[in-house]
Amino acid sequence: MSLSFARSLRTLSVSGQHARRFPYVLAWSSAPSSARFQSSFPTTGAPLADIDPSRLEVSPTPSPKPLPASSTLKFGHTFTDHMLTIPWDVKSGWGAPQIKPYGPFALDPSSTVLHYAQTIFEGMKAYKDADGKIRIFRPDMNMKRMNTSASRIALPTFNGAALLELIKDLVRLDQQWIPTEPGHSLYIRPSLIGTQKAIGVGPPNEALLFVIMSPVGPYYPDGFKPVALYGTTEFVRAAPGGTGAFKLGVNYAPGILPQQHAAKQGYAQNLWLHGPEHYITEVGTMNVFVVFRKDDGGYELVTPPLDGMILPGVTRDSVLTLAREHASSKNTITGLPANLTVSERPVTMKEVKEASDSGKIVELFGAGTAAIISPVDRIGYLGDDIHIPTGEGGMGPISRAVWTELVGRQTGIIPSDWSVVV
Amino acid sequence: MSLSFARSLRTLSVSGQHARRFPYVLAWSSAPSSARFQSSFPTTGAPLADIDPSRLEVSPTPSPKPLPASSTLKFGHTFTDHMLTIPWDVKSGWGAPQIKPYGPFALDPSSTVLHYAQTIFEGMKAYKDADGKIRIFRPDMNMKRMNTSASRIALPTFNGAALLELIKDLVRLDQQWIPTEPGHSLYIRPSLIGTQKAIGVGPPNEALLFVIMSPVGPYYPDGFKPVALYGTTEFVRAAPGGTGAFKLGVNYAPGILPQQHAAKQGYAQNLWLHGPEHYITEVGTMNVFVVFRKDDGGYELVTPPLDGMILPGVTRDSVLTLAREHASSKNTITGLPANLTVSERPVTMKEVKEASDSGKIVELFGAGTAAIISPVDRIGYLGDDIHIPTGEGGMGPISRAVWTELVGRQTGIIPSDWSVVV
Repeated sequence: MSLSFARSLRTLSVSGQHARRFPYVLAWSSAPSSARFQSSFPTTGAPLADIDPSRLEVSPTPSPKPLPASSTLKFGHTFTDHMLTIPWDVKSGWGAPQIKPYGPFALDPSSTVLHYAQTIFEGMKAYKDADGKIRIFRPDMNMKRMNTSASRIALPTFNGAALLELIKDLVRLDQQWIPTEPGHSLYIRPSLIGTQKAIGVGPPNEALLFVIMSPVGPYYPDGFKPVALYGTTEFVRAAPGGTGAFKLGVNYAPGILPQQHAAKQGYAQNLWLHGPEHYITEVGTMNVFVVFRKDDGGYELVTPPLDGMILPGVTRDSVLTLAREHASSKNTITGLPANLTVSERPVTMKEVKEASDSGKIVELFGAGTAAIISPVDRIGYLGDDIHIPTGEGGMGPISRAVWTELVGRQTGIIPSDWSVVV
Repeated sequence: MSLSFARSLRTLSVSGQHARRFPYVLAWSSAPSSARFQSSFPTTGAPLADIDPSRLEVSPTPSPKPLPASSTLKFGHTFTDHMLTIPWDVKSGWGAPQIKPYGPFALDPSSTVLHYAQTIFEGMKAYKDADGKIRIFRPDMNMKRMNTSASRIALPTFNGAALLELIKDLVRLDQQWIPTEPGHSLYIRPSLIGTQKAIGVGPPNEALLFVIMSPVGPYYPDGFKPVALYGTTEFVRAAPGGTGAFKLGVNYAPGILPQQHAAKQGYAQNLWLHGPEHYITEVGTMNVFVVFRKDDGGYELVTPPLDGMILPGVTRDSVLTLAREHASSKNTITGLPANLTVSERPVTMKEVKEASDSGKIVELFGAGTAAIISPVDRIGYLGDDIHIPTGEGGMGPISRAVWTELVGRQTGIIPSDWSVVV
């Protein structure tokens, strides 16, 4: 443990059970080896340094900000007192992590990220349970995906378990920022950007990993509100051989204009389609699920397969896992029908439209970290509107049962090893 | 003219003919109206301010950097003493332009550009001719394209002629940075980034336009060196309905990993293909041209059409225009054959391979601002290498004639209204 970190520990607002992970290095050394990722950069001579939590330096803010009233929170507009930064350079690897007051970065105007969009990010949520314990939902999935994203865009990879330990430190330090009202949480945003001070297109010789946190309210404060989608045939989100399967910044800014086009026509978001068959792929910035009623009276829960164009969402994986455990009777989920089939398979707009016409569509919804489940009631497609049932309270029967289980596990009401206590 | 600008003029190192454009406002008011672009954002109440050169504030550096020896220049690694910045916000529009010492930006960690890749850029070159006049090549094309790019990614648009006037001011101030050796120039990099301090995905409420400049040497200091391309079937650069036709940052970082893959197999860059027919689209970060020998003994110069996936390159347009003027006898280019056909049409890898096998391919080259013309001698494709002739001195006959004319016009040796004197 570095001197600066040991010194700063005295100022950390961690106590009781939240401090039990210390001493730091011991906890870190027990990290699972599966969370270890190799750098994609060739090393010459001594191996490059990986992220090392024992080198953490903490500089607490001298002037904490007043906590906002939970009722005033707007997604991603308010940030906590501190942030985590970890520099990287091609010669020495990952430098000393720092937790310091939230504030601006000094970035050279030639920084790679500002010209060539070399940025990746993750989104996670921390909850405070009834016992005051802090819980993060499946963070190992985010650490793994962040490394996959980094590799795709020639940014340095890192030890995911080490970053997670540092994120836990940051969450503990700012834990008073976690709102405790139902549906509220602390949104955690890790990002990694290329900061090379040169405008050639290539792997950067410098990068910066940082984590900021924002207290957020429920996505639907007044109950679930189904949204209308525009099945766009003008724009695409991803393509085979592209970057759709990775959580890169480049997948997001290009979607803003199509969203504005959809909004002008009275739709909240785009339903992204692929190919002449108009396969459904994603909705807005979420994965998509659809439930069909089968001829035998059973239900089929379907999401498009991970074919290289679909983001491997943590919520997507959680919905699939819960539904499959229920379908195989491994773990019954209250509210889910007994006769449930779970499929990862392509779905065309033709199939969605025909199922709507014949009354065989049960529901269609988006799934993602921010909204968790987002029900859909209408799809504009080739000039017509396709009606989608939404059920009581604006939410279909399958998604409601899955959502209840998911939120229960996220908030600690339902015990689950998906919920990691900080 | 603002007081601060008038005051700063006294410190500007412009004199003689380079200062003749002053007074500023008069020159500005003569800007062509065709260069005027409307903001894509709806205005309520008073119209938003556009970029206004009369509001320019100049803060010259107190400590100019030593000029680098031209022989040491590496593309995009050295920057001049000053930069131009113009802030924008959704309430008031474009703020006062500033020319100030080159230095880091203070960017909030939540800035849109750092998470969602909201960035666009341009690349232009300034030359100093034998009379000491400064020349920029077809900058109106860059201003127009920058606005098109901004609209695609929900960034604010602006008066392109106004930005160009400010860029000229910047170039004049740093004119001692323009290297005068043959093939050298001052690379000008305008960028526009979203700087909203919130991590929602949407049009930003703040943005920053900035211009930095870098003295650069010739792309091929030892004469033309043909490169080998890898015809990639694993990765794509663009797709229909995507962003390939716009100069967005998002088109660049995803190409780095594929370039590394190509390099591992012994190729310098990727030849980007599209669809099951493997249409050729672009090469690396350049447009692509191919020359076929026709059955009647004539030549066909071909480049893929602007179908929504191809960047409308300034060099691409210049090559096409020169070749067409020659073909129509409007303006004969020395070295180009009389029997020349110019086509914008799709070209498949099958056609390229068959033309190579039958000896009917004359040459294939990339075209872009950085390298101007980049000859190709080999294409790796589906496990085989396709041979491409390159002619004397590593450059084919058509591209050499076009390159000679282009460079002549860029540097002022050949009179042309494409060359704008600063």
